[in-house]
Amino acid sequence: MQTTFQISTSGPGLCDVTQEVAAWVQGTGLLTLFIQHTSASLLIQENADPEVQTDLAEFFHRLVPPTTDPAMSYLTHTYEGPDDMPAHIKAAMLPVTLSIPVSDGRMALGTWQGIYVFEHRSAPHTRRVVAHLG
Amino acid sequence: MQTTFQISTSGPGLCDVTQEVAAWVQGTGLLTLFIQHTSASLLIQENADPEVQTDLAEFFHRLVPPTTDPAMSYLTHTYEGPDDMPAHIKAAMLPVTLSIPVSDGRMALGTWQGIYVFEHRSAPHTRRVVAHLG
Amino acid sequence: MQTTFQISTSGPGLCDVTQEVAAWVQGTGLLTLFIQHTSASLLIQENADPEVQTDLAEFFHRLVPPTTDPAMSYLTHTYEGPDDMPAHIKAAMLPVTLSIPVSDGRMALGTWQGIYVFEHRSAPHTRRVVAHLG
Repeated sequence: MQTTFQISTSGPGLCDVTQEVAAWVQGTGLLTLFIQHTSASLLIQENADPEVQTDLAEFFHRLVPPTTDPAMSYLTHTYEGPDDMPAHIKAAMLPVTLSIPVSDGRMALGTWQGIYVFEHRSAPHTRRVVAHLG
Repeated sequence: MQTTFQISTSGPGLCDVTQEVAAWVQGTGLLTLFIQHTSASLLIQENADPEVQTDLAEFFHRLVPPTTDPAMSYLTHTYEGPDDMPAHIKAAMLPVTLSIPVSDGRMALGTWQGIYVFEHRSAPHTRRVVAHLG
Repeated sequence: MQTTFQISTSGPGLCDVTQEVAAWVQGTGLLTLFIQHTSASLLIQENADPEVQTDLAEFFHRLVPPTTDPAMSYLTHTYEGPDDMPAHIKAAMLPVTLSIPVSDGRMALGTWQGIYVFEHRSAPHTRRVVAHLG
């Protein structure tokens, strides 16, 4: 059983997709999510305090700043914009796939876990997430 | 076939769970492990020299120091303690799920690979790891 | 359905294995790749501009420099060479497994996604990647 979710992000940061995914899963098995992009990631993170999400985005923005930052002057892939190569680096460090056990139609998420698309580009994008349940 | 392992960590660092998982798997298929927390991770790492594990923990401690460190003063989610937000960041950078092929009851681990729970909080915790074999 | 790919890397950096994997998959299901090493990683990254790949390798080389770099003098696992412990750290930060939905014999890769083995050691190595299709 496969489907593709189209997720509209509103620019950099985390976009909660837990409800959309939860509404699709059924039965018992293994859910795998796969994001078809190299400048956005999937992430499981705390869903309680929104400050966790903004802090996370800020940490990665400081660890991998835009190529206009002198610290990143060694990067050569700059013609797609100062946020592009940092987005690829973040996409390497963060999950492109997630596998979540499902039991009786419910994902085995912990109490405080939500599923997010983490947009690394500066502009809003439509992101495709393929879901496989088997 | 699903189960949940309860892992008691003894504070920050790696906790070997290889034997416990190995004793549970059987047959041929795909094993998926999923940790139900956002301040601890799963990790496959070298099982030979224990210094690899302490070096790893030290690297991530320096990359993401406690919020009492002036370098982290931009973080806002601090009310759960100086080790909490850094734990969430490390949990974003390190695996929340692992998928390991199984053949004739044996996981396809390389010679030097062990499976660990990586505790990011300062205090010992009981961590839940859901296992799915299909 | 399982197999093991033997990948010869030519030293540090990304090695494209997309075609080799694509030639093996068939039918509809879930492909899981698992690398049996703790000093090399799997990675899905942009396959268009080769500068993305060299920039990626350079970023991680600067984030986790060899143990001969004074900034890394706190590391203790040095007897396997100055590139060994940094390789373990990079292997912790980057994927050891990838799960990719397959439909009608084709992996659900995005347009610009390729599959790579990311060699973290300085010398060329032969790397084993176990593939499971179920």
